[in-house]
Amino acid sequence: MKLFNTLILASAAAALPALGMAQEAETAAEASAAVSTDGVFILNSLLFLIGGFLVFWMAAGFAMLEAGLVRGKNVTMQLTKNIALFSLAAIFYYLVGYNLMYPLGSWAVDGVFSALFPNVAVLEAVGVTADAADDYSYASTGSDFFFQLMFCATTASIVSGTLAERIKLWPFLIFTIVLTAFIYPLQASWKWGGGFLDSAGFLDFAGSTVVHSVGGWAALVGAIILGPRIGKYKDGAVHPMPGSNLALATLGTFILWLGWFGFNGGSQLAMGTVGDVADISRIFANTNTAAAGGAIAALILTQVLYKKPDLTMILNGALAGLVSITAEPLTPTLGQATIIGAIGGIIVVFAVPMLDKLKIDDVVGAIPVHLCAGIWGTFIVAWTNPDASFATQIYGILVVGVFTIIASGIVWMILKGVMGLRVTEENEINGLDMAELGMEAYPEFSKG
Amino acid sequence: MKLFNTLILASAAAALPALGMAQEAETAAEASAAVSTDGVFILNSLLFLIGGFLVFWMAAGFAMLEAGLVRGKNVTMQLTKNIALFSLAAIFYYLVGYNLMYPLGSWAVDGVFSALFPNVAVLEAVGVTADAADDYSYASTGSDFFFQLMFCATTASIVSGTLAERIKLWPFLIFTIVLTAFIYPLQASWKWGGGFLDSAGFLDFAGSTVVHSVGGWAALVGAIILGPRIGKYKDGAVHPMPGSNLALATLGTFILWLGWFGFNGGSQLAMGTVGDVADISRIFANTNTAAAGGAIAALILTQVLYKKPDLTMILNGALAGLVSITAEPLTPTLGQATIIGAIGGIIVVFAVPMLDKLKIDDVVGAIPVHLCAGIWGTFIVAWTNPDASFATQIYGILVVGVFTIIASGIVWMILKGVMGLRVTEENEINGLDMAELGMEAYPEFSKG
Amino acid sequence: MKLFNTLILASAAAALPALGMAQEAETAAEASAAVSTDGVFILNSLLFLIGGFLVFWMAAGFAMLEAGLVRGKNVTMQLTKNIALFSLAAIFYYLVGYNLMYPLGSWAVDGVFSALFPNVAVLEAVGVTADAADDYSYASTGSDFFFQLMFCATTASIVSGTLAERIKLWPFLIFTIVLTAFIYPLQASWKWGGGFLDSAGFLDFAGSTVVHSVGGWAALVGAIILGPRIGKYKDGAVHPMPGSNLALATLGTFILWLGWFGFNGGSQLAMGTVGDVADISRIFANTNTAAAGGAIAALILTQVLYKKPDLTMILNGALAGLVSITAEPLTPTLGQATIIGAIGGIIVVFAVPMLDKLKIDDVVGAIPVHLCAGIWGTFIVAWTNPDASFATQIYGILVVGVFTIIASGIVWMILKGVMGLRVTEENEINGLDMAELGMEAYPEFSKG
Repeated sequence: MKLFNTLILASAAAALPALGMAQEAETAAEASAAVSTDGVFILNSLLFLIGGFLVFWMAAGFAMLEAGLVRGKNVTMQLTKNIALFSLAAIFYYLVGYNLMYPLGSWAVDGVFSALFPNVAVLEAVGVTADAADDYSYASTGSDFFFQLMFCATTASIVSGTLAERIKLWPFLIFTIVLTAFIYPLQASWKWGGGFLDSAGFLDFAGSTVVHSVGGWAALVGAIILGPRIGKYKDGAVHPMPGSNLALATLGTFILWLGWFGFNGGSQLAMGTVGDVADISRIFANTNTAAAGGAIAALILTQVLYKKPDLTMILNGALAGLVSITAEPLTPTLGQATIIGAIGGIIVVFAVPMLDKLKIDDVVGAIPVHLCAGIWGTFIVAWTNPDASFATQIYGILVVGVFTIIASGIVWMILKGVMGLRVTEENEINGLDMAELGMEAYPEFSKG
Repeated sequence: MKLFNTLILASAAAALPALGMAQEAETAAEASAAVSTDGVFILNSLLFLIGGFLVFWMAAGFAMLEAGLVRGKNVTMQLTKNIALFSLAAIFYYLVGYNLMYPLGSWAVDGVFSALFPNVAVLEAVGVTADAADDYSYASTGSDFFFQLMFCATTASIVSGTLAERIKLWPFLIFTIVLTAFIYPLQASWKWGGGFLDSAGFLDFAGSTVVHSVGGWAALVGAIILGPRIGKYKDGAVHPMPGSNLALATLGTFILWLGWFGFNGGSQLAMGTVGDVADISRIFANTNTAAAGGAIAALILTQVLYKKPDLTMILNGALAGLVSITAEPLTPTLGQATIIGAIGGIIVVFAVPMLDKLKIDDVVGAIPVHLCAGIWGTFIVAWTNPDASFATQIYGILVVGVFTIIASGIVWMILKGVMGLRVTEENEINGLDMAELGMEAYPEFSKG
Repeated sequence: MKLFNTLILASAAAALPALGMAQEAETAAEASAAVSTDGVFILNSLLFLIGGFLVFWMAAGFAMLEAGLVRGKNVTMQLTKNIALFSLAAIFYYLVGYNLMYPLGSWAVDGVFSALFPNVAVLEAVGVTADAADDYSYASTGSDFFFQLMFCATTASIVSGTLAERIKLWPFLIFTIVLTAFIYPLQASWKWGGGFLDSAGFLDFAGSTVVHSVGGWAALVGAIILGPRIGKYKDGAVHPMPGSNLALATLGTFILWLGWFGFNGGSQLAMGTVGDVADISRIFANTNTAAAGGAIAALILTQVLYKKPDLTMILNGALAGLVSITAEPLTPTLGQATIIGAIGGIIVVFAVPMLDKLKIDDVVGAIPVHLCAGIWGTFIVAWTNPDASFATQIYGILVVGVFTIIASGIVWMILKGVMGLRVTEENEINGLDMAELGMEAYPEFSKG
């Protein structure tokens, strides 16, 4: 590049008398090193696409994690819920949520659905040119929609694990529709749509609150209304109901960990400058070390407390580390990120038995991971980011929490009244797979 | 960039008297925003590499889907077939197929195999410069080869599921060699190698016909010649033989869904302009929503028809949605893509029992998914793409179908005559794993 | 681009009298096609990020491979070891290893850990500008750290499989800390940190020796010191102990295969020029074909030797193909890469029984795959890369081997003396899961 720059400068210098400013020559040299507008548009869109497919992959992670942590008789149901919830999220976020979340965007009409739903996401035209691109100086609408959709779906994925093994399929799916069409997008618009929480200075980089705590609150309210599984809290004791397949649960955790690089890294929202790509690199490194910190903290803590390391706690510790760093994966140093993640892991180890004491039955530990660590991660932003204040962080946590508790509570109660939430006692004991779906996940393996 | 553009324009303006055209100054400003030739080459190649590794991942998806849908006694065999078929596809597409598919390409010689196989794929030299690159204005040969190879392997993966639980290993692998070295590349050259189907105006963006229906036809012919599994159609009734591991089958579906972003998105074949990356974004979004549409359609339809949602139908519905959108993932709106995918899902729900009525035994449902939805997706291109005609689409479907039926029929018949296709009745009943491989997939889990 | 180039040239030509060299005009045209410095920085960093997350995914591959190849009673332990070792690698490579490996780098201080550990990795500042970037002409520090970290973790992953089913958790984890903080980084600095092996002309592109053989040597020494599993070599015969889940083992292999594109492709270390991206494309294609060659070689060889193809050998054959091509994935032709990989697969088929003859008990075959094929791959670099000599390659193999044997031997012996390496005989027979962790991986499936 050096020769080119020199020549451009020489050429520019020849033209300089007409411009009369030597300073501009320097600016030109710097600018010539910058990526062109087209290049920035391409790189930003590419970030959304890569980030998006990585976050899509998290849907598989949740499915495997939850399938591994439920008992064998409920695995088919859990898999069904996971693929159905993602699909419903994809359709209803497109039909309603996306435009609700970005109300300043184009409330445009998309073909066949226009009569029914006037406001659905519209992609840029095929072969769009720079002139016609919706936001030429930024990124393609389609890539943004694809990326944002995956965040909405993640929120829905969080709920399914907590309520496993006892909730009926259809009420759960209807809740998913309301969550992805209305609840998630509405509160997300307050921060990411440029709403009042954003104006208030609330910071949530990739969604410890906007995504994870919302899923967590909805799961918590659902778990309270739904009640615990039969036999979980009997005669004053907590009866563990071990997951049927820890290999799947571990696979799910690794998938989520991988997807999180897209979740946090993609949330930089731009990759067309030196600063942006260096920031994404920081985010990748911090995200990874926070997960590691959470896993190791849970490993050591369960060794100390119970004399035996607990794999499910280690998995949830890693996930809690990831949730904890999600609100601010950029400003911490590697050391700070490790500590933030490690405290997330510690929170999980204490929150799991605490929920049990409250007789709130969370099958996979989604409330400790996504809600408790989500609150922690959002709060601690103010440690490393000078633009954040602890007070404003708490304010944002509370606003989103109160809204989600009320909104999801209303929906859960309506569903309970109208169609009932729980399967029959007999079906719960026999397992949802045969009772509700007539299909076992592992039909050949005899149960112990 | 603005300052730079201004300066370039100023400098260009200074030079303009020599050129005498103000119009060119504007063109220069636009062009200066475009990505440089090197940049386009890099971005196009990068698209092939990312798309390629995502489609590679589909090989794992097929392996898991099929391992989950066969009975426990045939899992090791199904895994063996899947890793072996991918490996053979990699080698024979390199040795024969790639150059057969692109006959106008370089029929060059590659080292040690040159004596045996004069026409093998050749990569660009190490550290190639712009001057010496095979197609400097486009992308690196190696990236194109890598990407195309994965499509060929996908075609082979489709066949293995249908014929599971009864076909012998080696005849299947020999068929794979013929398919990947000759059948797939030949017909693919008619469309993607610039052949007569391409000239006729037949459109198939990412291969609903060229890839999926070819795999489907080869599987269908094989299933007819091979016959159903023992006991599948006995005493006039269809006896279900449930898959051994629905968690694996679901994982496989999620893997395929993820890989499909590379399959369809990479088929844009370019990422170096604003229009290309916006198109890829459309494709990602449409691909995702079509899969969701297929899954939800199958969920609702099985609920309505059978009163119980059927997870395997939902999984195949999602896959059928993906196959349906593959022939044209670009021109549909999100709404149209959802509908195209949903109809794909509906087709699967009806095609599965129809095949059973015809006593064609398709273990994993690959014929409904890849053949039926592949035809549907190819046909419906004419709905959203003004360049397509329904007549030409049908013409292309028929040409490829007739060719593949005849070619694969001949190969299957020869294999049947020469070495036999089926394992012995005893081995089939005992399971292929112990009989043919002496190795169980889950040796410790007693069978129910 | 053409119009732009023409105009720039015209403009440059107008300025040429001031420069007086027609030759420079040509250089300018070429340079204007090159990617800008910012663009190169972004693309190089992006390569590290994509390569890095793919290599991260290999940690999941090892976990699944090993969980599938151990017996059901040891699966939870194997999963625990894998997630814990990755997490420890992430933390200790950050705290110690990274700066030990690149001693010429910035031995800087990072926040809270500074009192304890003066030398920890430091990322570039948030929103770094071109002026302030650590290596503006190359790539972001964070992306390099992220990528390098994954290689260190891979080394640790190799060890865990060999020693499975009998080693205690904590001594293994302490060994992991020493390996990732000291042993790996020290020897890696000799080659990749610009040390004496690099100066000597030793070539190891992506680490057949630096990563794989180091993991293999450490595993070998550990296996010898630890001794075989109870009952493995009894009454002069080898008693096979089949893996509990070949579907997981196959999944793990596919994951590793996918991750290897990042492992080898990312090791090009640059993506900002035509030559670099074409080289990465070569590497992807060669890596894939080497794996295929290894798998097919093992398939054919086990068919010939044992009359039945052996899936675990095919999986390890593919992995051996990958390890074999890792020392030089760039210079071979596709044909040469296939052969190099195939010989790797053959080596595995012979090395596995040879180890058994020596009564060295390697549960998953990591020594044949990573050590034997690693040596082979490093040696054969001199076949295709004119810059390599067989003598220097052997020299490098020996230096790294002797160092790793001694270093890991000392650590294993100290751990054995201080805390003991093996679980009790009773615990080994009952399985590590219940005895050491109190948690079964598949609690509902009765054991055969």
